[in-house]
Amino acid sequence: MAPKPHYTPNHIPDPSYIRILDTTLRDGEQSPGAPMPAAEKLAIARQLAALGVDVIQPGFPSASSDDFNAVKAIAQEVGNAVDGDGHVPVIAGFCRCVEKDIAVAWDAVKYAKWPRLCTSIATSPIHMEHKLRKSKEQVIKIARDMVTFARSLGCVDVQFGAEDAARSDREFLYEILGVVIEAGATTVNIADTVGILMPFEMGKLIADIKANTPGIQNVIISTHCHNDLGLATANTIEGARAGARQLEVTMNGIGERAGNACLEEVVMALACKGYHVLGGLHTRINTTHILKTSKMVEECSGMHLQPHKALVGANAFVHASGIHQDGMLKHKSTYEIISPADIGLKRSTEVGIVLGRLSGRQALRKRLEELGYVLKEDQVDSVFSHFKSMAEKKKVVTDADLKALVSYKAFNLEPIWKLGDLQVMTCGTMGLSTTTIKLVTTNNSTHVACSIGTGAVDSAYKAINLIVKEPIKLLEYSLNSVTEGISVTSTARVVICRENYHTSTYAFNITYPTYSGIGTGMDVVVSSVEAYLVALNKLLGCKESFICAEKIQISE
Amino acid sequence: MAPKPHYTPNHIPDPSYIRILDTTLRDGEQSPGAPMPAAEKLAIARQLAALGVDVIQPGFPSASSDDFNAVKAIAQEVGNAVDGDGHVPVIAGFCRCVEKDIAVAWDAVKYAKWPRLCTSIATSPIHMEHKLRKSKEQVIKIARDMVTFARSLGCVDVQFGAEDAARSDREFLYEILGVVIEAGATTVNIADTVGILMPFEMGKLIADIKANTPGIQNVIISTHCHNDLGLATANTIEGARAGARQLEVTMNGIGERAGNACLEEVVMALACKGYHVLGGLHTRINTTHILKTSKMVEECSGMHLQPHKALVGANAFVHASGIHQDGMLKHKSTYEIISPADIGLKRSTEVGIVLGRLSGRQALRKRLEELGYVLKEDQVDSVFSHFKSMAEKKKVVTDADLKALVSYKAFNLEPIWKLGDLQVMTCGTMGLSTTTIKLVTTNNSTHVACSIGTGAVDSAYKAINLIVKEPIKLLEYSLNSVTEGISVTSTARVVICRENYHTSTYAFNITYPTYSGIGTGMDVVVSSVEAYLVALNKLLGCKESFICAEKIQISE
Repeated sequence: MAPKPHYTPNHIPDPSYIRILDTTLRDGEQSPGAPMPAAEKLAIARQLAALGVDVIQPGFPSASSDDFNAVKAIAQEVGNAVDGDGHVPVIAGFCRCVEKDIAVAWDAVKYAKWPRLCTSIATSPIHMEHKLRKSKEQVIKIARDMVTFARSLGCVDVQFGAEDAARSDREFLYEILGVVIEAGATTVNIADTVGILMPFEMGKLIADIKANTPGIQNVIISTHCHNDLGLATANTIEGARAGARQLEVTMNGIGERAGNACLEEVVMALACKGYHVLGGLHTRINTTHILKTSKMVEECSGMHLQPHKALVGANAFVHASGIHQDGMLKHKSTYEIISPADIGLKRSTEVGIVLGRLSGRQALRKRLEELGYVLKEDQVDSVFSHFKSMAEKKKVVTDADLKALVSYKAFNLEPIWKLGDLQVMTCGTMGLSTTTIKLVTTNNSTHVACSIGTGAVDSAYKAINLIVKEPIKLLEYSLNSVTEGISVTSTARVVICRENYHTSTYAFNITYPTYSGIGTGMDVVVSSVEAYLVALNKLLGCKESFICAEKIQISE
Repeated sequence: MAPKPHYTPNHIPDPSYIRILDTTLRDGEQSPGAPMPAAEKLAIARQLAALGVDVIQPGFPSASSDDFNAVKAIAQEVGNAVDGDGHVPVIAGFCRCVEKDIAVAWDAVKYAKWPRLCTSIATSPIHMEHKLRKSKEQVIKIARDMVTFARSLGCVDVQFGAEDAARSDREFLYEILGVVIEAGATTVNIADTVGILMPFEMGKLIADIKANTPGIQNVIISTHCHNDLGLATANTIEGARAGARQLEVTMNGIGERAGNACLEEVVMALACKGYHVLGGLHTRINTTHILKTSKMVEECSGMHLQPHKALVGANAFVHASGIHQDGMLKHKSTYEIISPADIGLKRSTEVGIVLGRLSGRQALRKRLEELGYVLKEDQVDSVFSHFKSMAEKKKVVTDADLKALVSYKAFNLEPIWKLGDLQVMTCGTMGLSTTTIKLVTTNNSTHVACSIGTGAVDSAYKAINLIVKEPIKLLEYSLNSVTEGISVTSTARVVICRENYHTSTYAFNITYPTYSGIGTGMDVVVSSVEAYLVALNKLLGCKESFICAEKIQISE
């Protein structure tokens, strides 16, 4: 493992040190259906700090008041929490090259010990002409003015991002980067916004910028790679080989379209090959926190990983049948280049504490803290009561059970409609399914309806629709068991949108606002109904704000 | 699009032409829980031919009689089917450097117009010492003798694979490759078996082999990259840049652990950048078949893709909300480097035929053929009857519905236990779930049992266990809806193993034989039960063979 240096943003003592900027909560959250409430973002930010990332980019403050509040809360708490190495992460607010964006972002991040503003504008001909409708000269002037404005607010750590740098004219890039460096930018971020570069092209781009940009030796070069051709991780590593010393990544590689470079892949490639093959490149990431962080992000974002996802997929360390256990135990390095323990995967014999129905509140709280969840008293109360009722039904409540419980129970928003009772009267192969449902509103009025349907879940959803009277379209529905064994705890996830808004999820390139919900329980029908209600409550709660001010999102 | 040349295996007129070897059905199938019956393999092989792959590697004939039969059937049919360009794919049988393996593989592939034998042995010190327990000299002798033996059978197209070449001594590699070329190998495959190389290292490995191996100019160099660090696609492309002219890939990147290089990513990178950036490299793949092939492999293997999977994930072409549809339609290339139509993704307005309850058998058959499924009469009958009963419940039966129906109904093995009736008596929030189930055996005896459980699926599975009396452990359970809308058709997937065999899926590195099953229907409980019965029937059917002869699997 690499040593754990304590670097401040503008203090660059080690030329081989690689900074990790995590944008799971900004670019990652822009995945369709992945928006996270502020409480989930805060929990993830705490975990990113424990993982040891240098810079946390928790949102785009001017995009919505939710995002502003999340960034501010993270700046106040995580941005001032000192870890065991004396390290405090930089908290970076994302903003376009627009005065209002920058001012709002500063108002959110200024509470952090090391606040940063990341201001970004497109530099490619196609983006400048069609999206910005500005000339090169105008874009240069805006960039200079906005970096100057950011510095004038008192921010000493300003990152300038060249959106679509990959398709920008090289000479123009050198010029604009030189201008923003002169204006006070301390990091310059080079984005392959559409994920078009081959690895060697990304290396050459960074090397060219390093060789030709005035003042570049005084700032950090950063990469931001998208995965449209499956090359984001490789491009990021080639960028580092060529001189980038900050790498922008997301946990699990989530993000718009095919997502961003994966934190876990980039970090483990540097951990495996940094010293011997990559000239000493190293990070301060505590890799044993990778799996835990990955699971949190998977649950909160609802972006389920495929079993063969590198490093953090369910199969990543599972060898096919037919190789004898005996043989693998003797010669592990025959097929294994990374020990599962390096990313925090414990063998079941090593898992210590086991929670069951006799476990108390303190044992639960301690285990939740070990899993990375710091909850308020009322949240612990809520999880504890659900934990007890689960423990009555199952002998052992596993970590996976707990995570599923927390991600649903503790972070749930104040619901407009709550589940009272649910009774599937009949379903199966022998007749039409019938479900009766009772919903309770915030002012405790109850509403009951029953419906038939093509199956238990369908009839339950139809009964809810009869009560709520909102035209809803179900876009996605999935259910996964999170624990081994036949008495499964299942997690359902649904994505919905308004009926009249939606044209098609898959066939069109554009979607209207979508809302996801997760429900966890021992009964698949109950989980499915809870997930539907969470999504429905989000949709109803967001009704007004979405009509008034559609969320602005830009890529980098 | 690239032209469609017609190349025979040993005829290499164009130095920039890249051959695609698809090993979805061999290395891909080695994913835990992904084994596919012969009928599914044949359907996928037909689709791979339509996609235009040069070489199909459909299995490891000596591993099991199932694999032998699947490879033979594919060699006989797909290996002799001439496409519109006059092209017939090479059918390649995988075998270790063992006489019996090679002879059995030849017996399976010899029916093809262009049969190939792919024989492989490890060349790294760690594998030779610990796995093979052979000296370098012994390994060279075996390699020479086995290539000679393969040629002696009458096979003129012999591929030699150097397993773990990435960690092999360079001088030894040049020597052993020179020896097998002299003995008659026509392709040499360079494997990064453990996925440890950085892209530039893979490039250097191929360049070094090209520069230093005697006789290399007379053969094709091939790459085989694994994805343990998320770099398989990049490494494959760097291999091609350095001189490899065959690339081994799998659809969706499935395979052991983190899988193999993805066909779709490698092919689309070459399609986007081959002519301008990669010196003219090109393939003959019909990229508009990519999405269809991806969906077939996803369904048959049960390896669900994450939404942000590059190119073929559900979000790959979905832009986040907040960018107006109007704007995207005007300036698509602002954020889109590949048109969705290039991989066969149709916008819903372009989708033509819609099947419903008035559609006849011929319309169904035609649509199934367009989707890539060529079924026998009795299979069409089976799908048609299920189609009619689905169309009674749903207004429109979509392509996704049809694919789910076919993958389950048409390829199902002769079951030992069939579902008679299922009745969930009660489930929900108000009491213990109770399910009654009736199973029917092959000789039509019926068995009924009821059980309570923690939920509807749990009580149903417990009732089945009471009848079947086999100690079963449920390892994975998931459910996905495959169609839009609230009257969802859901696909359940389970993975099971024997209770006494299994230690842990996730925490240990080794698993015992596992069996997966998929069930499709309108009711989540019925789908879940059908999936469980499919897996259970596989497990019971394989009972003897797994005790007698454990399936041999090796990596490359």
